[in-house]
Amino acid sequence: MTYCVGIKLREGLVLLSDTRTNAGVDNISRFKKMFTFENPGERCITLMTAGNLSITQGVIAMLEEQIANTGDDTESLLTCATVQDSARLVGNAMRAMQKQHRGKAPVQDSLFDASIIVAGQRKGGELRLYLVYSEGNYIEATDDTPFFQIGEHKYGKPILDRVIDIDTPLQDAVQAALLSMDSTLRSNLSVGMPLDLAIIEADAPGYAVNKRIEADDEDFAALSRHWSEALRDAFTGMPAFTAL
Amino acid sequence: MTYCVGIKLREGLVLLSDTRTNAGVDNISRFKKMFTFENPGERCITLMTAGNLSITQGVIAMLEEQIANTGDDTESLLTCATVQDSARLVGNAMRAMQKQHRGKAPVQDSLFDASIIVAGQRKGGELRLYLVYSEGNYIEATDDTPFFQIGEHKYGKPILDRVIDIDTPLQDAVQAALLSMDSTLRSNLSVGMPLDLAIIEADAPGYAVNKRIEADDEDFAALSRHWSEALRDAFTGMPAFTAL
Repeated sequence: MTYCVGIKLREGLVLLSDTRTNAGVDNISRFKKMFTFENPGERCITLMTAGNLSITQGVIAMLEEQIANTGDDTESLLTCATVQDSARLVGNAMRAMQKQHRGKAPVQDSLFDASIIVAGQRKGGELRLYLVYSEGNYIEATDDTPFFQIGEHKYGKPILDRVIDIDTPLQDAVQAALLSMDSTLRSNLSVGMPLDLAIIEADAPGYAVNKRIEADDEDFAALSRHWSEALRDAFTGMPAFTAL
Repeated sequence: MTYCVGIKLREGLVLLSDTRTNAGVDNISRFKKMFTFENPGERCITLMTAGNLSITQGVIAMLEEQIANTGDDTESLLTCATVQDSARLVGNAMRAMQKQHRGKAPVQDSLFDASIIVAGQRKGGELRLYLVYSEGNYIEATDDTPFFQIGEHKYGKPILDRVIDIDTPLQDAVQAALLSMDSTLRSNLSVGMPLDLAIIEADAPGYAVNKRIEADDEDFAALSRHWSEALRDAFTGMPAFTAL
């Protein structure tokens, strides 16, 4: 499976993904799900993928092909006019891949479901966060709904629901995203380390952070340990529900 | 949807269910999902149901019919030899209902999926907790896996994973079950108040608690509020993950 979360704040974008892919519980592999594209100082676009791996790899390959062919007027993630156009290009590639596969194999079409988070910023433009569906259509994050999750999203949603709004400081959102991932890692074996983390700050079209967090990362382990202890302390301090 | 959780501890059984049922988001009703059967001082059996409502109502009706007919040697939840036999009777009723419906309607058979938690104790017997599947087979909770969840289980699993083991005190398990429900209520509209709570203490075959927690219950509201605040405090106190 997969867990990816994208958060849009006034201060910036926080993007976090795991790297585990599985076909059944006995066939687990490591595949990157975060893809970063950058034209330094001009624009940065991040994609995070979930769902059918052949579909999402095909989408990424098409988008990389467009970038490689730039020069002969091909629109690409790095040349299109706006970040919304990036979401449209991702949606077009998604639709093309789905057409290649749906209705042609003796399996349920839902096996080909996939979704992609698109996030980025152009110089002089605003921070943008989109969610592209299997059908190629997409929605944009707003002040009311400032984060999108794809893949195994339920375990990690409560902490985001409690902490994240559009005015949350960037550092707090990074912590919340990591704790959301931590809860998911604990409850679902098919989501696994290492993690990919990207941060884009408002009015700075580039990556403030674009790093891999390895399984032995001490800061992440400390965060996870402290959160466990803090939750236990919080639990111990609850007022008794007087049922008994 | 539904959320029910059953926890088996050395000290007793904790059983908690919501009461919301929906067919689509625009057709929401209130249906009890916890059914308690008791022969005071001799045995108590609790069922909690999730999944297709016509199936689970049919199962409950069959089991109540067996109880009503007791006298002419009909085996029932209140006369069978062991709590495991109760799980078998529930499984048999499940299988009979599934046979009535599967393969006979122009819909996917998975629409008829259902699951039932069976928990109870006989005089002189041990605490038992079972999970009965659509197929009529069942599994039993063990020291290693002391709780079962049915319905919308993911949002409320992290707190149980962190707090519950077989030696958890009964009062703590009640709090954990309620907080697990609170997380689920917050994240999924199709799980709703009021709640039904039953508690069975070890070596006491009867209900120490068998009550409804209404939407305006002040103790539950206080627990929910304190937990929210405690989580925010815990979050604020985290060591900074030095990404930026």
